[in-house]
Amino acid sequence: MSPKKIAIQTLLSSRIVVPIEPADRVLTDHAIAIDNGVIVDVLPTERALKKYDAKSYVEYDDHILMPGLINAHTHAAMSLLRGVASDVPLMDWLNNHIWPLEKTFADEQFVHDGSQLAIAEMLRGGTTCFNDMYFFPEITARVASQMGMRAVVGMIVIEFPTRYATHADEYLSKGLALFDTYKNNPLITTIFAPHAPYTLSDDTLTKISRISNELDLPVHMHVHETAQEIKDSLELHGVRPLDRLDQLGLLNPNLLAVHMTQLTAEEITQIADAGVTVLHCPESNLKLASGMCPVHALKQAKARVIIGTDSHASNDDLDMFSEMRTAALLAKGVSQDATAFNAQQALRAATIDAARALGLGNETGSIEKHKSADIIAIHCNNIESYPHYDVFSHLVYSTDRQCVCDVFVAGRQLLKDRTLTTASEDDIIIKSKQWQATINAFDASTATQW
Amino acid sequence: MSPKKIAIQTLLSSRIVVPIEPADRVLTDHAIAIDNGVIVDVLPTERALKKYDAKSYVEYDDHILMPGLINAHTHAAMSLLRGVASDVPLMDWLNNHIWPLEKTFADEQFVHDGSQLAIAEMLRGGTTCFNDMYFFPEITARVASQMGMRAVVGMIVIEFPTRYATHADEYLSKGLALFDTYKNNPLITTIFAPHAPYTLSDDTLTKISRISNELDLPVHMHVHETAQEIKDSLELHGVRPLDRLDQLGLLNPNLLAVHMTQLTAEEITQIADAGVTVLHCPESNLKLASGMCPVHALKQAKARVIIGTDSHASNDDLDMFSEMRTAALLAKGVSQDATAFNAQQALRAATIDAARALGLGNETGSIEKHKSADIIAIHCNNIESYPHYDVFSHLVYSTDRQCVCDVFVAGRQLLKDRTLTTASEDDIIIKSKQWQATINAFDASTATQW
Repeated sequence: MSPKKIAIQTLLSSRIVVPIEPADRVLTDHAIAIDNGVIVDVLPTERALKKYDAKSYVEYDDHILMPGLINAHTHAAMSLLRGVASDVPLMDWLNNHIWPLEKTFADEQFVHDGSQLAIAEMLRGGTTCFNDMYFFPEITARVASQMGMRAVVGMIVIEFPTRYATHADEYLSKGLALFDTYKNNPLITTIFAPHAPYTLSDDTLTKISRISNELDLPVHMHVHETAQEIKDSLELHGVRPLDRLDQLGLLNPNLLAVHMTQLTAEEITQIADAGVTVLHCPESNLKLASGMCPVHALKQAKARVIIGTDSHASNDDLDMFSEMRTAALLAKGVSQDATAFNAQQALRAATIDAARALGLGNETGSIEKHKSADIIAIHCNNIESYPHYDVFSHLVYSTDRQCVCDVFVAGRQLLKDRTLTTASEDDIIIKSKQWQATINAFDASTATQW
Repeated sequence: MSPKKIAIQTLLSSRIVVPIEPADRVLTDHAIAIDNGVIVDVLPTERALKKYDAKSYVEYDDHILMPGLINAHTHAAMSLLRGVASDVPLMDWLNNHIWPLEKTFADEQFVHDGSQLAIAEMLRGGTTCFNDMYFFPEITARVASQMGMRAVVGMIVIEFPTRYATHADEYLSKGLALFDTYKNNPLITTIFAPHAPYTLSDDTLTKISRISNELDLPVHMHVHETAQEIKDSLELHGVRPLDRLDQLGLLNPNLLAVHMTQLTAEEITQIADAGVTVLHCPESNLKLASGMCPVHALKQAKARVIIGTDSHASNDDLDMFSEMRTAALLAKGVSQDATAFNAQQALRAATIDAARALGLGNETGSIEKHKSADIIAIHCNNIESYPHYDVFSHLVYSTDRQCVCDVFVAGRQLLKDRTLTTASEDDIIIKSKQWQATINAFDASTATQW
């Protein structure tokens, strides 16, 4: 008599599984057993079929199963401004396009519809978690929750008034209320998201530093994005922004410093020693000509580097496969070393390293027992995917996001054969078209409209 | 009584047509009338329907029609080595991977199967013409011809023996025989493709210079790819490679100089003045850490810059949408100017500028009367394409190659709803799998095989 099988919700099997942890491991003919949204086992398929009785069994053949990607820096709602002002200098871009548009349009409805569009695009591209910084974060949190997407939602703080809040203390208190709301949520977490050193006072930054230490919460902030930022800080504060953050108690393992295109050799050592995470957005940095982050030098100094797309206004997509590729390619060009930021490093930056930096190291970022079943299936039986010689190289240098066919977050299937299961793509497109018409009517300055 | 309609083969209409010429023009609700493979008219759809009686009428709604892209630098057959050795230094890559593999495998069958795979991938990505440099070019020409693809096939010349030829004169005579074969072919043209200054003697280069001048044929050559190349030339010849080419009579409007990552300010002026075309391969240059081509400075000096992917072994795809995007982004980063190499410039580099550099300015590269109907349709009614504010920006910064749904070359539909019409994708995949197994068995050094 054969032993009784264990009843579980879902079993996914594939010829190839890339669990990310253990590092560099590729599992062949393995299965992932999922129950209550959690990975309960990772084992050879043959054994899995004998051991488990799954309500739903999905058998992948020419696919790679891997953990969902983590987009570590987004302003999701800005999806409605996709490519609204390309090829213009940074200050023109901000002063004459982005800021007037945000001032006019960035209300609750904008954040709702924009977040929905962004999450739809991210899911369709294999991203299962994003780290967001934008106004009305409670709306982005709600939309993510409704769509089943994992999100880290920023408690945004900035000194100037917007439609969301009027002064730093109001931002902060609204943020902390959000933190309380989502404290025990399985999908949504909240972290601090002070905009940047140059838009925040010493007082506010000190306050954030204090609460972040008390709660042991990450702080997600734009830092050293441009040379101008350094120049201004030296004039105003007599020190470079990183030194100012150090003085204010923020240079510690909770800091996720976004961009970091301007770094001296000393600063590279400083942040590596302090355990700061560098949040690299290569395509945005290139498009806005902000500078180039010294990724290879940072990795050599043992600093943690993770990857984000930044917003649609400077990218113009939320494609983490493309962003990994650009990061891996650019690091080689910048360091003049073809071994820099290799495929494994890029993959870890977009999965486990990001999860750890965001305080989600036990939740997501790898296919391991006890972690949430945040898993994507990548289709490889197509002209663009053959031949392939190395799984990691294939994922970073040859995989288009359209090869992502299925996406699971916490065991729930959110994308099935490239179709969203928790939102209507048609509805999202209709709403996006309406915003396009509205915004075109307001800002007809640069656009070859259509 | 209404006037009699003119009978034509095909009419394509769309809400948006980007003809590329005239520059910066976007046509709304226009149609393209095609007969005998040639564009006979471009006019408002309403008028077109009254004027023409088309055997086949395709009405596009949420699509952009534009000329097919031109991949100006390929080694098509190397598709079979897609990503075979990523993240390794250039000399290791060449000496321990690419060259041993080519020495062992690059025969007629390899070139046949590899060219087929490459052309399939290019067509599915909206590329309608490629400029190739590889051994057995007669086979690539034949495969392109069979699949209906436009190709510029290089008369490759190199001083060392391969399976294709044993010495420079043999390469040259085989090439010239190919030139004669395809002299009046509507799809295939041949140009010179001497490999690089460092693999060719003064004698051979002088010969090529002379015949190229006589026949007024372009010369497609790797030039100034790496700093090492410059150093070696200074040691061996006492001059930089560009100066050597100048001395040998090759610095003229027929030269298509590939890579050009190492350029002094004087050389930028020199090549602009000489009318040399710079053939930029940004992703390959980054991946091999060769250096960064000063695209913005070249454009400011009025030099022509066109774009190619290079081979699968250093890219690892033949995606011209991605390559345009990388070129436009990287140019901004390198020049620290967000206005550098804008979307219009990138699009022209991948269409009309490439056509002119390749001697095909009257054939392809734009949607104009009397030109060949080399046209692609890009689907825009999807999550990834909304909203969109500027057509050029959308094409360069937001369009994934999978949005290409239909492709026409010389009026013949080669891709229909993303399926090839002139080759079996399944057969190509099967052959690619076989090559993968063979090559994996030979070179198991780096691969996480699967």
